[in-house]
Amino acid sequence: MSGLDSAQLRTLAAVVSEGSFEAAGRLLHVTPSAVSQRIKALEEAVGQVLVRRQRPCDATEAGRPLLRLAGQLALLEREALADARGPLGGDPGRTRVAVVVNADSLATWFPAALARLPAPPELSFDIRQDDQDHSAELLRAGAVMAAVTAQREAVQGCRVRPLGAMRYRALAAPSALRRWFADGLTRSALAAAPVVLFDRRDRIQHRFLRTLTGRTVDPPVHYVPSVPAFSAAIRLGLGWGMVPEQIAADDLDSGRCVDLAPGRVVDIPLYWQHWRLDSAVLTALTTAVCAVAAETLR
Amino acid sequence: MSGLDSAQLRTLAAVVSEGSFEAAGRLLHVTPSAVSQRIKALEEAVGQVLVRRQRPCDATEAGRPLLRLAGQLALLEREALADARGPLGGDPGRTRVAVVVNADSLATWFPAALARLPAPPELSFDIRQDDQDHSAELLRAGAVMAAVTAQREAVQGCRVRPLGAMRYRALAAPSALRRWFADGLTRSALAAAPVVLFDRRDRIQHRFLRTLTGRTVDPPVHYVPSVPAFSAAIRLGLGWGMVPEQIAADDLDSGRCVDLAPGRVVDIPLYWQHWRLDSAVLTALTTAVCAVAAETLR
Repeated sequence: MSGLDSAQLRTLAAVVSEGSFEAAGRLLHVTPSAVSQRIKALEEAVGQVLVRRQRPCDATEAGRPLLRLAGQLALLEREALADARGPLGGDPGRTRVAVVVNADSLATWFPAALARLPAPPELSFDIRQDDQDHSAELLRAGAVMAAVTAQREAVQGCRVRPLGAMRYRALAAPSALRRWFADGLTRSALAAAPVVLFDRRDRIQHRFLRTLTGRTVDPPVHYVPSVPAFSAAIRLGLGWGMVPEQIAADDLDSGRCVDLAPGRVVDIPLYWQHWRLDSAVLTALTTAVCAVAAETLR
Repeated sequence: MSGLDSAQLRTLAAVVSEGSFEAAGRLLHVTPSAVSQRIKALEEAVGQVLVRRQRPCDATEAGRPLLRLAGQLALLEREALADARGPLGGDPGRTRVAVVVNADSLATWFPAALARLPAPPELSFDIRQDDQDHSAELLRAGAVMAAVTAQREAVQGCRVRPLGAMRYRALAAPSALRRWFADGLTRSALAAAPVVLFDRRDRIQHRFLRTLTGRTVDPPVHYVPSVPAFSAAIRLGLGWGMVPEQIAADDLDSGRCVDLAPGRVVDIPLYWQHWRLDSAVLTALTTAVCAVAAETLR
């Protein structure tokens, strides 16, 4: 530990995970002023400002390696204690399992992986939803121990495994098909028909347009950053959009939506990035995630 | 306009909505350096720094009133032009309709309100998902023109209308019921059974626990910040949680979940906050939102 105080590291982790000195104090059963003193002491020991004092509190660049260290130590310590005490050694508290997952995986296959873990009652899941950019940031900062992401390059300090691809189909309501695509998927129709995007970083629809037309098309857009609202907007005829096949199936079967270009799909490969750490929880989670992904992804 | 340049104001709005000088330039068909010059000129005219140069770019405290002004001017200008030109006056471009909506409304009733607007093809929806704290901030900053929120006090510059209440029921999988509540909803069972929370600001479960037990209960928690993953986690038996009745209906009817405490519900009143502005789009949106809310909320 090279002189670093483990209570101070735990306090750093609590301040960032809970977002404020007050909330960290509640979690650790100490006063906010004790939290503040520990953070100051740790900052003096390291010689760097570690916490950005704002709402919510965040780790500085210098604070991130320490935050990751704190998370890794907490996990290893807890597992060593549980091993030392044996199965009848009493309740060591719940192990926090922090994972960031892209929105479409979270809305479809990922919860089943959590349910498949052995002895889930001893775990406390802290799931975050995000896109791949932010995911790498959270991994680097140690705020999460693993991520489901489209980023294939291993994040610093992490191992990466391919999970398979999520397949997207171009869906539209029958009314939208009649209104904008009466003459088929012509380039002018694709430039005029509104497209539903998840958010400003969502490039799946534009990738589909490029493969279809061979060039960049710039149609009118609606931004709808909620998985259920995204498919509802398409069902209601506001525009067309790329929907994961797991979500599309119901709307296609019921006829509420049609596949704009059957056979023309976009596959987004997904990866499991996780801390390089010999932890029982992380190993079990990796096994469960890979198993469920193998059953549901391409 | 007291001397403010409307092209500069439009540029300010584009920088904040698109997140960078480059993206704002693409939207406005000018170079990033022209964007930078306009922002600097506006900052000199006002005598304040207006844009926080970061990824994504954000308005400073001083920039927010100008951002709201820019949004309001753009909306009024577009509608005046459309009126002046008449229905055959050509395409004035799409009106951006920026609204922030709480996650559960977005996942249930809100998309139907968008679909009910007259002539939706002329609009470009820019929906954001957020909790009530952030919603007020976005309204104040002028980043959105309206919000569905639990905040009843009018945000500065806004009018507020009650929409009715979203009703939440306590759901659990039959397996969770057997495992944790074999002896009923006793205080010790409620303290031991894991509860699924949307995120750290989600207080609905704790409110339910307090009304049920008369005191603060501190059970183990899972955080699952995705509406479909939240109900999946409950269905899979990871814990119990408060689910909007619109989402709960399917799981209750199919027997995949049970109502832990039939008749003991939590009602969260929702409000429509919108700019005080005589705009045709805003009036039509308000009418549609209030009508759909009246049909689906309590």
